[in-house]
Amino acid sequence: MGATPVREGTLFRVWAPQSRSLDLVIEGHPSASERYPMEREENGYFRLLLEGARPGTNYRYLLDGGILRPDPASRLQRSGVHGPSTVWWPPEDSPPPFSAPPLRDQIFYELHVGTFSPTSDFDGILPLLDHLVKTGVTALELMPLSQFPGTRNWGYDGVFPYAVQWSYGGPDGLLRLVREAHLRGLSVFLDVVYNHLGPEGNYLSDFGPYFSTTTRTPWGNALNFDGPDSDHVRHFFLENLRSLALTFDLDGFRLDAIHAIRDQSPHPFLADLSRLAKNIGSRRGRPLPLIAESNANDRFTVRPVEEGGLGLDSQWSDDFHHALHVAFTGERLGYYRDFSGVDDLKESLAQGFVYRGQYAPSFRCRRGSDSRDLPGASFVFFAQNHDQTGNRMQGERLAALLPPEALPAVAALVLLSPGLPLLFMGEEYGETRPFLYFTDHGDPELIEAVRRGRKEEFSAFSWAGDLPDPQDPETFERSRLILADPANPLSDFQKRLLAFTSRLAKLRKTVSALSPPEAIGGDQNRVFSPADSVLAI
Amino acid sequence: MGATPVREGTLFRVWAPQSRSLDLVIEGHPSASERYPMEREENGYFRLLLEGARPGTNYRYLLDGGILRPDPASRLQRSGVHGPSTVWWPPEDSPPPFSAPPLRDQIFYELHVGTFSPTSDFDGILPLLDHLVKTGVTALELMPLSQFPGTRNWGYDGVFPYAVQWSYGGPDGLLRLVREAHLRGLSVFLDVVYNHLGPEGNYLSDFGPYFSTTTRTPWGNALNFDGPDSDHVRHFFLENLRSLALTFDLDGFRLDAIHAIRDQSPHPFLADLSRLAKNIGSRRGRPLPLIAESNANDRFTVRPVEEGGLGLDSQWSDDFHHALHVAFTGERLGYYRDFSGVDDLKESLAQGFVYRGQYAPSFRCRRGSDSRDLPGASFVFFAQNHDQTGNRMQGERLAALLPPEALPAVAALVLLSPGLPLLFMGEEYGETRPFLYFTDHGDPELIEAVRRGRKEEFSAFSWAGDLPDPQDPETFERSRLILADPANPLSDFQKRLLAFTSRLAKLRKTVSALSPPEAIGGDQNRVFSPADSVLAI
Repeated sequence: MGATPVREGTLFRVWAPQSRSLDLVIEGHPSASERYPMEREENGYFRLLLEGARPGTNYRYLLDGGILRPDPASRLQRSGVHGPSTVWWPPEDSPPPFSAPPLRDQIFYELHVGTFSPTSDFDGILPLLDHLVKTGVTALELMPLSQFPGTRNWGYDGVFPYAVQWSYGGPDGLLRLVREAHLRGLSVFLDVVYNHLGPEGNYLSDFGPYFSTTTRTPWGNALNFDGPDSDHVRHFFLENLRSLALTFDLDGFRLDAIHAIRDQSPHPFLADLSRLAKNIGSRRGRPLPLIAESNANDRFTVRPVEEGGLGLDSQWSDDFHHALHVAFTGERLGYYRDFSGVDDLKESLAQGFVYRGQYAPSFRCRRGSDSRDLPGASFVFFAQNHDQTGNRMQGERLAALLPPEALPAVAALVLLSPGLPLLFMGEEYGETRPFLYFTDHGDPELIEAVRRGRKEEFSAFSWAGDLPDPQDPETFERSRLILADPANPLSDFQKRLLAFTSRLAKLRKTVSALSPPEAIGGDQNRVFSPADSVLAI
Repeated sequence: MGATPVREGTLFRVWAPQSRSLDLVIEGHPSASERYPMEREENGYFRLLLEGARPGTNYRYLLDGGILRPDPASRLQRSGVHGPSTVWWPPEDSPPPFSAPPLRDQIFYELHVGTFSPTSDFDGILPLLDHLVKTGVTALELMPLSQFPGTRNWGYDGVFPYAVQWSYGGPDGLLRLVREAHLRGLSVFLDVVYNHLGPEGNYLSDFGPYFSTTTRTPWGNALNFDGPDSDHVRHFFLENLRSLALTFDLDGFRLDAIHAIRDQSPHPFLADLSRLAKNIGSRRGRPLPLIAESNANDRFTVRPVEEGGLGLDSQWSDDFHHALHVAFTGERLGYYRDFSGVDDLKESLAQGFVYRGQYAPSFRCRRGSDSRDLPGASFVFFAQNHDQTGNRMQGERLAALLPPEALPAVAALVLLSPGLPLLFMGEEYGETRPFLYFTDHGDPELIEAVRRGRKEEFSAFSWAGDLPDPQDPETFERSRLILADPANPLSDFQKRLLAFTSRLAKLRKTVSALSPPEAIGGDQNRVFSPADSVLAI
């Protein structure tokens, strides 16, 4: 799929089952583009081996002589989501061997490339890798990198799943980052979005039935994983995971919002994906764990495929976050009204989830299934993440909401938890700058719709102040870490918190009793007394 | 739920979470209806205990002082789907004890009440029960009985799941039928539709979010089994099954098209339903098996709930039907193009399903999962049913498509199969009248839409002739069994086929080697040689 440089030139291959004809259009000088008719294979694919094409060649596809579109499997979009695709291929030298820690020993660090570094790109991260090593985290978890509209986006509006955001440094930049991270012993996980595509530059429907005609998600039509022609759609995303994993030598993936992947086939796409990841892992001799984000609290997410599960390795526990947030902030609006605070926090530490089948007021239905027999490592525990921070109107982190003395307790709860800890970038030293929602769309109507949508999203909360404009570059700039700013050294408190975080991470790694237990409900090593640990650590 | 006569009067209870106020309107003389404000409970229910109301009382609900609607849980709609509901309660005498054969020994007989008997009602069936006993079937499977618009309908347009079609004789008629069937040793199964409601008289949305806002089925919006407020929707249908089973002393259910029940919750509605049926079964000391219709060929449909399945007892094998149909008729259009004939027929006999993960051309995707280790009794095998007959443009049965000498072979394949055999009414003697699609809608636009829809449905087939008008009463009349017509005795051939069918049924019951095997793929007792059995039985 996509454009593959071979000895004789470049092989172009694309699925367009609804088209009678397809032309490859090579875009050289603006005034001189060349058209090559492609050959129709079986199953709706078109192909062409073009001799002159090589890495760096710009191209698009002309569908039925009518519309000109970039390649759904484009690996490079140097002019953004609406521009031509560019042939790209990774360099031939193989990456240095890397041996990632087992999943159960990982400490995750969620990182947004645009706001983490002073230059908003991969190369800007490199000088900060040593800081991460010192902090004690073991795995970067990069927010989505698929090419999105403009230069400012969380990444969930990506529309080219095979392309790495050009403004971040593109695929070559990502290769450099992974290499440097691995050299320092850091694993690299990537967040991938297999539940929808962004609203701008989403041309997949021009090529084929990538989207369901019967089901919508909160963000647009659901992907077609179980309807007619879904085999190819699955193939497109299965190959996407394989291609990303192998091209960039990644150590695992976070799967965004799998509850929005609507799929009732006997062989769910996600079960296929977990089988694929296990195959890749055993073939390369290094596992490729998959971690789900899901609001379903469903034990079958991590149960083996042959036992009716999806076979994923772990899943985020929003319940831990929400319980902790309520315990520390006292907030009870929106989805926080489902949680009581300290009791629920203990419950999630003891069971992984708080909602294991009870009625959840904010969901307005029963939620979850039994989880106490699941391994500790099948839960990811965090006190903050991009969503829980950025989906507040003012994007406040805990350091802006809590008194400083509460932050070490939060850090201890996360880093000594029986699941896999995850820190949100900046959390290690109590970053006080906000993490806001920002976009860089090109369509005025869409910009307005996003502004409206954000306001509606916050209607359940009674937050004060004006909504920062997502489209304003300043909103993005305000979200950049203080760490990225050489003119702004950390405060003494921040330095002390960082040292404490680092000591906790070290403790977790050296005290084997702190490893995630075989069954989270059977953990004998942790006794969380709210009076002792939460309030007076 | 609904109207429940109690000592002091009648208790009315209805879920209307979106309404601020609800009035019970008692409709006596046309000019004098009385209004009683209802009391709002928690969770959006309204209730009222009304002293004067008793069985026979007509009522509706007035929502927010604006619209007047019949009761979603109405048990009686004597004036059709748009009229008032009527309080009904079953007589107090308990039914005579009945001991149904185990599911694995059942031979099903699918029956449409409207066209089976001369009077199109339950009472018209009674004189024909002895014919069924003689035929050797053991269980009636009644096509859906929920109140539908008009008097002519297959039943899948039902809109009052708790009400029994008034023109069939209503709940009292059904009670008489079940009692008489049980007295003759016949079980009674009922086809229930939990995937959509019909298009006319469907007032549920006026009361609450019964339907999904994100998902559609081929027949309308999907029911809301996993979204906000889905707990009540589940409760409504769970109680529906319980109420039908206990009120009418039923022996089991067929669940229509469960692939159109869209539900991704950790506790699927159908798993809840199978648990409920098992509870009812053990409490009354007589199992309540659930049999799915599903096009998914999914092994998890019949796997236990605790192993990730839905826990249903059996499911229809369309594959057996299609393979047999192709083998005997040579038809290869529409969905029949997925099947080769004799080889696939052998395959389905040996494995339950033909499609166990292969690409199915008419589905345009992979279909099914491994089935060979499933019990024989977890498949229902049939050569004809209402769908496969009635969804032909001219509604031809096999007796109208095949030479008479082929029919005994068909009967043998079904009745000696390793699954549960099902005959479609009239099949036992080779009925030659068609079974057509018929409706009796009241809305001209809907009538036209149904006509158009039927034409589109047949576009993949090249059937000759004009489409019989679904709305024409003659279309219904042409579908009535010859058996129902005393003036039309069976032909000699029909009598001989009936005797042969009856002998096969007896053989199945007396030769224990013909029982469904523990695993369909491990059946040692049947050897089907196409040359011997299919072509020369």
